Amino acid sequence: MKVPADLLSFFKREKKFFIATHINPDGDALGSSIALAITLESMGKKTIPYCNDPVPEFYKFLPGHERFTNSISDLQPSTFNLVLLDCNELSRAEVKNTGFVSSVVIDHHETETEFGDIKWVNPRSPATGIMVYYLIKELGMKITKEIATNLYSAIAIDTGTFRYTNTTPESLRIAAELIEFGADPSYIAENIYETWSERRFKLLLKVLSTLEISGEVATVLVTQDMLKETGASAEDTENFPGFPRMLKSIKISALFREIEKDYYKVSLRSKGEKLNVAGIAVTFGGGGHRNAAGYRIRADFKKAKEELLKAIYSNCR
Amino acid sequence: MKVPADLLSFFKREKKFFIATHINPDGDALGSSIALAITLESMGKKTIPYCNDPVPEFYKFLPGHERFTNSISDLQPSTFNLVLLDCNELSRAEVKNTGFVSSVVIDHHETETEFGDIKWVNPRSPATGIMVYYLIKELGMKITKEIATNLYSAIAIDTGTFRYTNTTPESLRIAAELIEFGADPSYIAENIYETWSERRFKLLLKVLSTLEISGEVATVLVTQDMLKETGASAEDTENFPGFPRMLKSIKISALFREIEKDYYKVSLRSKGEKLNVAGIAVTFGGGGHRNAAGYRIRADFKKAKEELLKAIYSNCR
Repeated sequence: MKVPADLLSFFKREKKFFIATHINPDGDALGSSIALAITLESMGKKTIPYCNDPVPEFYKFLPGHERFTNSISDLQPSTFNLVLLDCNELSRAEVKNTGFVSSVVIDHHETETEFGDIKWVNPRSPATGIMVYYLIKELGMKITKEIATNLYSAIAIDTGTFRYTNTTPESLRIAAELIEFGADPSYIAENIYETWSERRFKLLLKVLSTLEISGEVATVLVTQDMLKETGASAEDTENFPGFPRMLKSIKISALFREIEKDYYKVSLRSKGEKLNVAGIAVTFGGGGHRNAAGYRIRADFKKAKEELLKAIYSNCR
Repeated sequence: MKVPADLLSFFKREKKFFIATHINPDGDALGSSIALAITLESMGKKTIPYCNDPVPEFYKFLPGHERFTNSISDLQPSTFNLVLLDCNELSRAEVKNTGFVSSVVIDHHETETEFGDIKWVNPRSPATGIMVYYLIKELGMKITKEIATNLYSAIAIDTGTFRYTNTTPESLRIAAELIEFGADPSYIAENIYETWSERRFKLLLKVLSTLEISGEVATVLVTQDMLKETGASAEDTENFPGFPRMLKSIKISALFREIEKDYYKVSLRSKGEKLNVAGIAVTFGGGGHRNAAGYRIRADFKKAKEELLKAIYSNCR
């Protein structure tokens, strides 16, 4: 992967960087941003890693996460360069373009916008972390243990630790090198996958026991009562939608989470390259990626479920 | 990793191989055996891949799995060399030493026995599949797509697709190469993790609902009644022992599977480098790896559980 020459000169030349990433940040957003910030600081530059949402509890194993701020009231944009990481439009980061010196985009998402003075958007990269890895290498900087842990986590999250279709030989080789630089793969996997609370575990069992199967579609339900009974929170349902995918017969799974009576957040997941759930979510006013999307709907559960099944069968047949 | 010279000459010299692997075969046992069989056949040799248990349904995506037999009534041992793969004692494969020409052991388990005319036992190898990879390379044979898929699956299973402590830079680099030889990482992951039957899924929910926590130890139970109620089979419990590990507070998880009244198969899993469950299993006459081991015990569940907790606390403190 080739880092654009103007991007390299930008990082060598400029001194102050406001590194912003998207809301609801994941491991790629956070890990890439921290790795870049540490690198630039070690070059004697000043950085402000920014995310509008606080760093989620379960990502606090990322060394350097405390560099993130979600407050920019003091920021003087006219002295900073904006670096947009793991997204390519300002609205995804909830940042207003209030006169930064210049703006740079480093991202691997498919839906590209026009924003950015220097743009490096590579949808074929499995993770933004891989792009930042090449950037650090090209800048001639050292990959410390801290940086390696952040970049490995970024790649691990975005490839499902090497289970998704974006798992390339290159991503495995870079991961191998990052282990040599100090990343600990089992420590990282443990922090990503094995830090559940008992509350969350009990909620999962309740939710999975609501499983209903209609052809190739699985639906599961989270009610407010279940949250109360287990003491778990809505945040705890993160990644629940993927569980029914473990069933061989299932191609699409949907989690209905009751926000309030007759109002649901619906999270869709699909298997493989063919079934684009983003397309289905869009028909309900939502959005997302090919294999992971969502929307909200005002209806009772029965009706909401019927509407979804109807949409799936008219979209996917 | 260096392949012993006498092992290489053995495979070059001999013509007929009875390749036996352990009962309750996993992806490493099966994938390594198939990869070796295909290679030897392509060298003009005759092979009989053998497992006393049939190939589990969910491993039938491994190309070449149909080469396995579990019937040896016709076998004339005096014309075959025995190759014991992914185990190092005959009893693990339920094979009797009834006069094979010679015997070879290729394994990565820690508990090593004296058996074998030529022995290559490397507990530092993350998978037997990695040892077979080096063997094929050293034999100068081609890694076909079929072989790559089997070896990748072997490595994926034994490293938890690169999540366990045995995930080394070497294992990631070999995996990268196997993708280039034709292995499809997401196809393999989907087949390993997302091909559950509804029966198996329902059994998992029942089993996880038996969860009990004693300090850092989680225990779950599978009874014969649960198998009957769900229509699932004992082989469906493969990888169940790992589920309670998702809990942050848990360092060791144990699955007790009732074989018959007051007779249990106990599967242990641990997190991290420190807790060696193989050591605990050995005290009960079992064995295994640092993070995954097992044994059988005749006792009622309460007593069996007490004994285990006692052994854990005396071994691990």
